[in-house]
Amino acid sequence: MNSQKLDRFNSNSGIEKIDLKKLAKELNLSISTVSKALRDSWEIKAETKKRVRDLADKLNYQPNPYASSMRKRKSQTIAVIIPEIANNFFSVVLDGIQVVAEKKEYHVLTYLTHESYANELSTIKHLQSGRVDGVLVSLCSETSDNQHLIRLKETGMPIVFFDRIAELSDCPTVTTDDYVSGYKATEHLIEKGCRAIAFLSLSQHTSINHKRQQGYIDALTYNKIKISNRLIIQCGKDNDKDKLIIKKLLTRKNKPDGIFASVEKLAIATYHVCNEMKIKIPCDLKIISFSNLRTASLLNPSLSTVTQPAFDIGKEACELLFRKIEKKTNKYMNEHPVLKSSLIARSSTAQ
Amino acid sequence: MNSQKLDRFNSNSGIEKIDLKKLAKELNLSISTVSKALRDSWEIKAETKKRVRDLADKLNYQPNPYASSMRKRKSQTIAVIIPEIANNFFSVVLDGIQVVAEKKEYHVLTYLTHESYANELSTIKHLQSGRVDGVLVSLCSETSDNQHLIRLKETGMPIVFFDRIAELSDCPTVTTDDYVSGYKATEHLIEKGCRAIAFLSLSQHTSINHKRQQGYIDALTYNKIKISNRLIIQCGKDNDKDKLIIKKLLTRKNKPDGIFASVEKLAIATYHVCNEMKIKIPCDLKIISFSNLRTASLLNPSLSTVTQPAFDIGKEACELLFRKIEKKTNKYMNEHPVLKSSLIARSSTAQ
Repeated sequence: MNSQKLDRFNSNSGIEKIDLKKLAKELNLSISTVSKALRDSWEIKAETKKRVRDLADKLNYQPNPYASSMRKRKSQTIAVIIPEIANNFFSVVLDGIQVVAEKKEYHVLTYLTHESYANELSTIKHLQSGRVDGVLVSLCSETSDNQHLIRLKETGMPIVFFDRIAELSDCPTVTTDDYVSGYKATEHLIEKGCRAIAFLSLSQHTSINHKRQQGYIDALTYNKIKISNRLIIQCGKDNDKDKLIIKKLLTRKNKPDGIFASVEKLAIATYHVCNEMKIKIPCDLKIISFSNLRTASLLNPSLSTVTQPAFDIGKEACELLFRKIEKKTNKYMNEHPVLKSSLIARSSTAQ
Repeated sequence: MNSQKLDRFNSNSGIEKIDLKKLAKELNLSISTVSKALRDSWEIKAETKKRVRDLADKLNYQPNPYASSMRKRKSQTIAVIIPEIANNFFSVVLDGIQVVAEKKEYHVLTYLTHESYANELSTIKHLQSGRVDGVLVSLCSETSDNQHLIRLKETGMPIVFFDRIAELSDCPTVTTDDYVSGYKATEHLIEKGCRAIAFLSLSQHTSINHKRQQGYIDALTYNKIKISNRLIIQCGKDNDKDKLIIKKLLTRKNKPDGIFASVEKLAIATYHVCNEMKIKIPCDLKIISFSNLRTASLLNPSLSTVTQPAFDIGKEACELLFRKIEKKTNKYMNEHPVLKSSLIARSSTAQ
């Protein structure tokens, strides 16, 4: 480039200001290539990156601060969307996320949807402004379509799903072995003598529920126990209504002798109902639940649980998100790690 | 206004576009007055509001969409900032907030600070962009200064504090009778025979801790029991460290015969330590805790609690926030309602 041209470039008088367009023209590259090169994308060859950076330095290219913050991912903030507050699983997942984010010197904004689809929608919409660099999502129990998530993905926002996932192309997921755990929990109740096992869940929509319920069904089938749709119970968001549903279940003629709760709040609701109705756990009714409840071992009786590796879920999900944010590799796309949960037998399923 | 002037106003050709400035000039009012009149502020006389609206209608005034969304509070969204996830108190507070927000057709964005000052800072900074219409805040245990909150207030953002409050001028607060509850909980332990009562708290910084601790100190003094600084214990964010601190407390020579926990997680930690150390509750040690724990009555033994009216706290705080957002009155400024908690005696403090 001759010095006259340089002078023209350097005079910041409107039309000749150095922007991506000028750099692209000068280098005979597309704007998109220059942009990607400047943010060190894996999609661009090292040689090209060097050419772009050299000219940008030479011309003292000053990126548009707003666009740059978008492109360079300078918000240094990630968002985590979780459905439930009164659930220790998510609390521990957040610990795992925090450890990774702190190493990267990123802030974590945590949003609660409170199991409401309307809240999930408004949160996702809020995040479309691009004020965060990536989003970790666990869906609420009301969510049955993916349109809002697809729209967020289409803005270019890196998204990783964990636990309650949506299956979107190019979005990594971190889950646990929900099918196997559902199978094992049911088999545990069978081994302890239960023959009429109810399955309690919060929603038919969530990915985890499908798998846990399928595990329950297959364990019964394998053990030649008849599946009864009347023992597959869907509860909701309202604790009082949940208790009424469980009360009805435990007072009817063919009442269950075992309960497998897909989420811990339903196990707690069952304990409350048993207390009220003087049903003795584990003599009259055995209970096992998916749970990371801090008080599981302190309950009367202590609660048998399937406990998810919540810390590791958070850590892995956050690491995958940073691989997307940093775009140092394109290998993130088909990563769907599945971690193992542990069955912890306690007094609530004792013989 | 003559028709020539009107024509000039109506031609949307740049300089003569109808904006607040033009309206103000035409009406001989300040821009601020016109702006406030258009958003129905209580600060403006009804007569003036009518004059402003009439001219705005006549001239087909189209507000700047972005500025308008800021001024008209059109995000239809409020933010709630809470410190802790594994705490049922906040879960129920959120239910109360939700009920009010839904009536107003507002969305609720809930942010978790996870008891971290850094997270609280970045959340507050994030909200300064004005993408929400108001903020409900309960401070994290690490927060010891108010600068970030003052900055947010200075952007004109309506703020209401609840439970763990900051005392900022013109910011309403909703709290409970923490001093009286601290006093009563301590007296309850004294009545049950305790003479060496430890007070466990999460932080010396929070507003609630000061009051609860003062209630504890005054109850001991009134009952002629010597205050020992070695029984006033500060725990932290790390559950494992908390357990070590409590273990140390329960193994030393002059160990306590009663524990008053300011937050439920410390009561749970105490239960775990007692289980490990085979300390029998309530024979060897009595425990009472501030708590809205769903499993308080299900624990072995059931936990005596001071339970806050969490739903009403959320409801009142949200109602006060809407009075600020809607600016229908200026009476919100000095509102500091104090609600009553209930002491629920259970087996953990039985004689």
